[in-house]
Amino acid sequence: MTRLLQTIEPILWRDEQLHLLDQRVLPHTEKWLTYHDSDAVAEAIKLMVVRGAPAIGVTAAYAVVLAAREAWFSAGENWKEAVEPALKRLTSSRPTAVNLSWAIERMKQACASLSKYESPEPVLLALADRIQQEDIKANRTMGQYGADLLDNDSIVLTHCNAGALATAGFGTALGVIRQGFLDGKIEHVYVDETRPWLQGSRLTAWELMQEGIPMTLQADVAAGALMASGRLDWVIVGADRIASNGDTANKIGTYSLAVLAKYHGVKVMVVAPTTTIDWLLENGSLIPIEQRMSSEVSEIGGHVIAPVEVPVSNPAFDVTPASLIDAIVTEEGVVSNPSKEKMQQLKKEGK
Amino acid sequence: MTRLLQTIEPILWRDEQLHLLDQRVLPHTEKWLTYHDSDAVAEAIKLMVVRGAPAIGVTAAYAVVLAAREAWFSAGENWKEAVEPALKRLTSSRPTAVNLSWAIERMKQACASLSKYESPEPVLLALADRIQQEDIKANRTMGQYGADLLDNDSIVLTHCNAGALATAGFGTALGVIRQGFLDGKIEHVYVDETRPWLQGSRLTAWELMQEGIPMTLQADVAAGALMASGRLDWVIVGADRIASNGDTANKIGTYSLAVLAKYHGVKVMVVAPTTTIDWLLENGSLIPIEQRMSSEVSEIGGHVIAPVEVPVSNPAFDVTPASLIDAIVTEEGVVSNPSKEKMQQLKKEGK
Repeated sequence: MTRLLQTIEPILWRDEQLHLLDQRVLPHTEKWLTYHDSDAVAEAIKLMVVRGAPAIGVTAAYAVVLAAREAWFSAGENWKEAVEPALKRLTSSRPTAVNLSWAIERMKQACASLSKYESPEPVLLALADRIQQEDIKANRTMGQYGADLLDNDSIVLTHCNAGALATAGFGTALGVIRQGFLDGKIEHVYVDETRPWLQGSRLTAWELMQEGIPMTLQADVAAGALMASGRLDWVIVGADRIASNGDTANKIGTYSLAVLAKYHGVKVMVVAPTTTIDWLLENGSLIPIEQRMSSEVSEIGGHVIAPVEVPVSNPAFDVTPASLIDAIVTEEGVVSNPSKEKMQQLKKEGK
Repeated sequence: MTRLLQTIEPILWRDEQLHLLDQRVLPHTEKWLTYHDSDAVAEAIKLMVVRGAPAIGVTAAYAVVLAAREAWFSAGENWKEAVEPALKRLTSSRPTAVNLSWAIERMKQACASLSKYESPEPVLLALADRIQQEDIKANRTMGQYGADLLDNDSIVLTHCNAGALATAGFGTALGVIRQGFLDGKIEHVYVDETRPWLQGSRLTAWELMQEGIPMTLQADVAAGALMASGRLDWVIVGADRIASNGDTANKIGTYSLAVLAKYHGVKVMVVAPTTTIDWLLENGSLIPIEQRMSSEVSEIGGHVIAPVEVPVSNPAFDVTPASLIDAIVTEEGVVSNPSKEKMQQLKKEGK
C-alpha cells in the first residue's frame, strides 16, 4: 500500500539537466532521456516522450530554465530578448493542452521581474520546482475530493492515461482512483486501451498493475456493452483544456464515452487542476484540436496495419460539453453539473 | 468501374479442395490456404482465416462436403453416422454467427435425403455451390435495396468488414456502399479501424481503396466527434445474428455507434441476408457472445502493447436493440424501424 504514496514521477531535474521517462516505449522499456536544451524538449513534447496536460506544463517550465540558461550564456545582459524565440517554439509544440502556455507564461512573468545582469537560472529553477510540487499537491487534493464523490465499491472506467505519468506525480483521474482504492471506494477499474496511442494499455494498465489495483483492459469499442450491462458507476477522466463554461477537451473518445454514459445513467467525472482551465475561452468549440500524423493509426510499433497510403483522420482530442459532465474536480473544489456561472464561482473562490 | 462487378470472392472450391483467402495476413499478403478435411476448416474458422457471418456459413457448407467425403471413404454405407462428430466440431467452431449452424443444418437435411449406398459428394457439392451463389445474389439485391434508402452524396460510416471478404462476394454493408457509390448516393465513407482485430483498417480499407471509393480510416474512438460535426448521414453495418424481434448482434462497438447515432440524429442501417436471422430467439439478450483470447487486445501482429499478464476483457460482439436501428436490409426486403411484428411480416413474405 505504501507504494501508493511513492508513485512514479516522470519528470526529474538532476545534475542541471532535465530527465524525462520516455513514455513511447513503456511498459516494456523504462528508459530515461536527458535534455539540456529547450528545443530538444519542445521536440520531446511533440513526439510524446512526455504527454498529459499537467506533465507537459511542468516539463515546459523546466524547458524555460534551459532556454534562459542558454540565452544567458550566449547573450549575457540581452538574455530576455534572446530567450524569446525558444519560448515561442516551445509554446507551439502542442496546441491543445493549455497547461503548456500557462506554465510558460508564469515563467515569463518571473523572467520579467529579474535583473538582466544576473543569471536567471536559480530563480527560474526554483519556480519550476515549485510548479512541479504544486502539481503533485493539487493531484493529492483532487484525489481526495474525487474519491469522496464515489460510493463504496464503485466500478469505474477510465480512458487514456491521466495518471502519475501524465502529471508531476500521483495523477488526476488516476489520483482519484488511487485514493478511491485506498478508501474502499473503488472495487474495479476498466481501462480503455485508448487508440491510437494506446495510453490505456501501455501506461494506465502499467500504473494500476504496479499498485495492485484490480483492473481489466478492454478495446475502446467495448465501453458501450459494458455500460449496457449495468455494472459501471463512473467514467473518470482527465482533461487537456477546459473552457470557461466547463466544456472539456480530452483524449479523442472521451466525448463518445460521455454520450454513452448519459444514455446509460453512468456518471462522468473530469479531474484536472485549475491550470487546465482556459478562462479566456467562452466555450469548447474554440479549443484548437490537434490533428496528429496518420502513422499513429496505420502503424503500431512499426508494424503496418493498413494499406499503404490509406487516407487517415487522426484528431488527438474531442470536446465534451459541460452538460454531459457530472463533476469537474479541481484542487480548488468540485463543480457539480458545471455551467458558466458555477465555473465563475470556482474562479472567485480560488483567487 | 467494372471492377465493382468483379469483387473478390474469398472462398473457392477448386481441384476437389476448399481454398480460403487468409484474412489474418491481409492487406499486405494475399495468401490462399488449401483444405481437404473438415476439422482443419473448423480450426480455420476459429482462427479467423475466414470471418464474417455469411462467409462462415458458405465455408461451413463446403466443410460438410469434405466431412461427408471423409466419412464415405472411411465408413462406406455408415457414412451418415460417421459424419456426425465432424459436423458437431464444425458447429461449435464459433458461437455467435447463426449462418454457421444454418448452413450445416441445410447440408444435413440434404444428407438425410441421400442414399447411404452412394457417394454423397456430388449432391452436397452442388448444394454448397448453390449456397455460395445464393449469398452473392442476396448481396447484390441487398446492395440495391440499401442504396435506394440513401439520399444523393451521403456520408457514411462503416464498422468492421461486412464486405466481399465477409461473404461469398460483393458484401452486405459494403454491398450497399458499392452500389450506393455507383448510383451517386455515396460521397464519402469513414471506416472504423475496428479494434481489436482491425477488420476495418486491414480489410474494409483495402476493399474500398482497390475500387477507388473515397474513404478515410479513423480510430474507433473518433466516431463521436465525427457525428458531432454534423457531417455523417448513416452508419451502415452487417450483422452476425439477428433475433426475431430485430435485435442485432454485430462486431463489438456497433452498439456504441448506434447509441451515438441516435443521440446525433444519424441513421443506422443493418444489412444482412435472412440466413442471419435466428427466428428461434425472442430477443437479443439470448444471443451467445463469444469471448476471444486476450492476446487480440494485448498484442498486434506479434507486437506486445500492454503489460505482461494484463487482465483483458475481449467480447467479440455486442447487441444493438431494434429500437436503435432505422432499417434492416435483407434480400427479401427492407424492415424499417424493426419490431417483432414487422420481422414476422418479413418472414411471411419471404416464405
